[in-house]
Amino acid sequence: MPVTLDLNCDMGESFGAYTVGDDARMLETVTTANVACGFHAGDPSVMRRTIRLARKAGVAVGAHPSFMDLYGFGRRRISGERPEDLEAQLIYQIVAMQGMAEVEGHHITHVKTHGALGNMAATDPDLAALCVRAVAAVDASLVYVSLPYSETFTAAEKAGLTVACEIYADRSYTDAGELTPRTEPGAVIHDIARNTDQVLEMVLNKRIPTTGGKRLEVEPATLCIHGDTPGAPGIAAALRARLEENGVTIAPFAGPGR
Amino acid sequence: MPVTLDLNCDMGESFGAYTVGDDARMLETVTTANVACGFHAGDPSVMRRTIRLARKAGVAVGAHPSFMDLYGFGRRRISGERPEDLEAQLIYQIVAMQGMAEVEGHHITHVKTHGALGNMAATDPDLAALCVRAVAAVDASLVYVSLPYSETFTAAEKAGLTVACEIYADRSYTDAGELTPRTEPGAVIHDIARNTDQVLEMVLNKRIPTTGGKRLEVEPATLCIHGDTPGAPGIAAALRARLEENGVTIAPFAGPGR
Amino acid sequence: MPVTLDLNCDMGESFGAYTVGDDARMLETVTTANVACGFHAGDPSVMRRTIRLARKAGVAVGAHPSFMDLYGFGRRRISGERPEDLEAQLIYQIVAMQGMAEVEGHHITHVKTHGALGNMAATDPDLAALCVRAVAAVDASLVYVSLPYSETFTAAEKAGLTVACEIYADRSYTDAGELTPRTEPGAVIHDIARNTDQVLEMVLNKRIPTTGGKRLEVEPATLCIHGDTPGAPGIAAALRARLEENGVTIAPFAGPGR
Amino acid sequence: MPVTLDLNCDMGESFGAYTVGDDARMLETVTTANVACGFHAGDPSVMRRTIRLARKAGVAVGAHPSFMDLYGFGRRRISGERPEDLEAQLIYQIVAMQGMAEVEGHHITHVKTHGALGNMAATDPDLAALCVRAVAAVDASLVYVSLPYSETFTAAEKAGLTVACEIYADRSYTDAGELTPRTEPGAVIHDIARNTDQVLEMVLNKRIPTTGGKRLEVEPATLCIHGDTPGAPGIAAALRARLEENGVTIAPFAGPGR
Repeated sequence: MPVTLDLNCDMGESFGAYTVGDDARMLETVTTANVACGFHAGDPSVMRRTIRLARKAGVAVGAHPSFMDLYGFGRRRISGERPEDLEAQLIYQIVAMQGMAEVEGHHITHVKTHGALGNMAATDPDLAALCVRAVAAVDASLVYVSLPYSETFTAAEKAGLTVACEIYADRSYTDAGELTPRTEPGAVIHDIARNTDQVLEMVLNKRIPTTGGKRLEVEPATLCIHGDTPGAPGIAAALRARLEENGVTIAPFAGPGR
Repeated sequence: MPVTLDLNCDMGESFGAYTVGDDARMLETVTTANVACGFHAGDPSVMRRTIRLARKAGVAVGAHPSFMDLYGFGRRRISGERPEDLEAQLIYQIVAMQGMAEVEGHHITHVKTHGALGNMAATDPDLAALCVRAVAAVDASLVYVSLPYSETFTAAEKAGLTVACEIYADRSYTDAGELTPRTEPGAVIHDIARNTDQVLEMVLNKRIPTTGGKRLEVEPATLCIHGDTPGAPGIAAALRARLEENGVTIAPFAGPGR
Repeated sequence: MPVTLDLNCDMGESFGAYTVGDDARMLETVTTANVACGFHAGDPSVMRRTIRLARKAGVAVGAHPSFMDLYGFGRRRISGERPEDLEAQLIYQIVAMQGMAEVEGHHITHVKTHGALGNMAATDPDLAALCVRAVAAVDASLVYVSLPYSETFTAAEKAGLTVACEIYADRSYTDAGELTPRTEPGAVIHDIARNTDQVLEMVLNKRIPTTGGKRLEVEPATLCIHGDTPGAPGIAAALRARLEENGVTIAPFAGPGR
Repeated sequence: MPVTLDLNCDMGESFGAYTVGDDARMLETVTTANVACGFHAGDPSVMRRTIRLARKAGVAVGAHPSFMDLYGFGRRRISGERPEDLEAQLIYQIVAMQGMAEVEGHHITHVKTHGALGNMAATDPDLAALCVRAVAAVDASLVYVSLPYSETFTAAEKAGLTVACEIYADRSYTDAGELTPRTEPGAVIHDIARNTDQVLEMVLNKRIPTTGGKRLEVEPATLCIHGDTPGAPGIAAALRARLEENGVTIAPFAGPGR
């Protein structure tokens, strides 16, 4: 029986005169692009170009909202803000991306929160509920991309949203099903053969291997591909090829308007 | 035969901890709100609150896009930018406002450009065409609010957009039909009786009185009401009352979804 | 024996077209101004005007650095930043303020951290040390304004800086000598008579009254005066008058170049 | 008789997570660095690192102030601002850079305005005077780097500042002594042999060759080296080698504290 997996990648992270990433090449490999909305990275012109490129490449797009933090690239942890202010910021980013996509004849399929916001929401039920509320306020048919075993996954399911379970090839998992913090040894798996094995285990056997030797249930929908490291496009293409050789069909997860 | 006029006012110009204007009171008098989109003023939370207030007050809303210039409040003249970048910025602001309104069960009816952008576009055909292109790219049924005798008016009509002709009660007009520059004597008319007379002449007789003694044809749709001066709500209410006493019906101009 | 107390107030918090506070009137009452440096509030032109006003009024000035957070007015708690980045931001703000003061023939006497940064540093020894390091890097003769019974007080003393102990008239203190969190009942003391009594107890008897009925030792140097509440100038003037009637001399604490 | 020339290059233009240029390599070749001050590029941490690198490499540093325009990288032409606001912005940037350098045991020698501000000031006497006023307000011993045959050169000399005359190797000159606009053919000279010849003509014979065949007097102090093009470090090193082979001594122009 065929198994399908989406490959998602953060894109559109250039800003003004600053260019990062090689979006055009990444679009040859991935099937879904999470597009920065101008709060942690990106600007309207970059968004528009990224959406055009994605559409031409047949790649699905979604909003990649963040804290309002250009300087910190959305990686700084921000708290103490009024919840209604943060919720409005997320809605603003999602509808801006949605509207930009429509203008280009494309459609957003999903929302994936960026950086510190995503990390904080994964373990904070109130923040997770806030993120989910923002997505549902815009369009309840949008897919919520989330790590499994997280507060966001729980909150999105509880709100009735379709959740696309996101997995990593190059990060190890704790026995609680969370990513091992980067500050700990063994957090990152650098070997492409091991990366492939981990993905196959998750996709074919539907089990997350943990650092404590456990096997946790999982229903992966999308694999997070990094686009900001040196050689990223080549690594992504190689990983995709290996997955396809092992019988995995690479295709976008279903979304609205597709 | 009844004559109808819309009263429009810029709103939602607070930002973060900074509050300006008394939007709640202005909404008691005006019929259309031009809402700042976060580039020269406003922020997502302010936008949302402004839209909610407007909806509750039965006031139409539209996007009030600007140059990306929070520091200068959109009043600095900016040039030398790539046209496609500015166009994307305008689209971004319009769709963000459009989406925020939809989330609140409201609908944008129009676009009015802000400050220096509006002033520059009024006399620059290329910039006028760019602004019009941005609006049309989002939704060709959006009304374009523009001064008459301007490049924007011409460009919007040429593009097939509905144009709402905007007039001023407290600014004098040159023989070319343009607003007398503020740096010149007689540019601003401070007397409310004269303000009323000027509006009635334009609305009832469809003629703009000019500083050179001419009478220029005009089909006014909306009157610009200032909300940022001391005592603005009281002045606006008094002007509205006088216009109504003189047989002018105050109501929003037609727009999409209304 | 005469007792002296400084009255300090945050100023220069306007930004671009946004105006807050009535700095000119507050300068009639206070003896020290903490001037925003453009990161959470203020801009170069506002800074310059504030310094000029302070100099003319004979009021000492100091830098009031913050997290880089204009949207949040420096009230959002930000973490996860590289320490060297935050340290550089603080140095930048302090030297900018120092240089602007010099250009105006004035001199900064001190540094007081703003908002969330100040609150976080008060209880985080690493962050406190970072703030102190930034001040010392610029000029070790600058006075560090800090709450007593805080990590910043300890860190500043340890680094050999002169510390100006700051007290509040309208906030109650816990038995640990910290301000009662605003979320708790009794955190704010609204009665001016009680405000005066609390200050006199601290200034004359050198004891902090706590909510648990304790008396903690204190050597107050400066009283924090709020400038951003309605009626602030009047309240400040009244408090000053009462303190002077009770024998307290109001004067700036010593600083460099004075 | 020995002839000396300074090589200056814009540096410290990275921002937050965005990196541009290869400052470390450029510092091997140039003798003066114009450091971005955080308004069009750069941030406090980048400034500090750049100053440290320059100091270690024995390279002089100066302030490279700009319009407040991170999005446009200071390349957008901004007008309509109150002169006192822009002057305060320039002072702020210069003193911030000055103070950051002092903290690192280095000293700024000069000021060179960036991008659109520099271009506009070169032909606008009021703006030129404003820029010069800002520099003089900070420290009248700072060297003003300026193109010859410009309003800034005239204004700086008139104000009694030391002016370092800046020349280009790869730009042609009009008969008026101005750089040929980039939009015109022949504006940029791509051949390194011709670049060298042009510099030697200016440095050794003190004459600017113009596109109309004229020879204009010049007293070059510093050559502008580009650091933001692909292969910039190699090109810069090659040009320096050729100039040295032809008897030109490469050394920083004199400045305060050197």
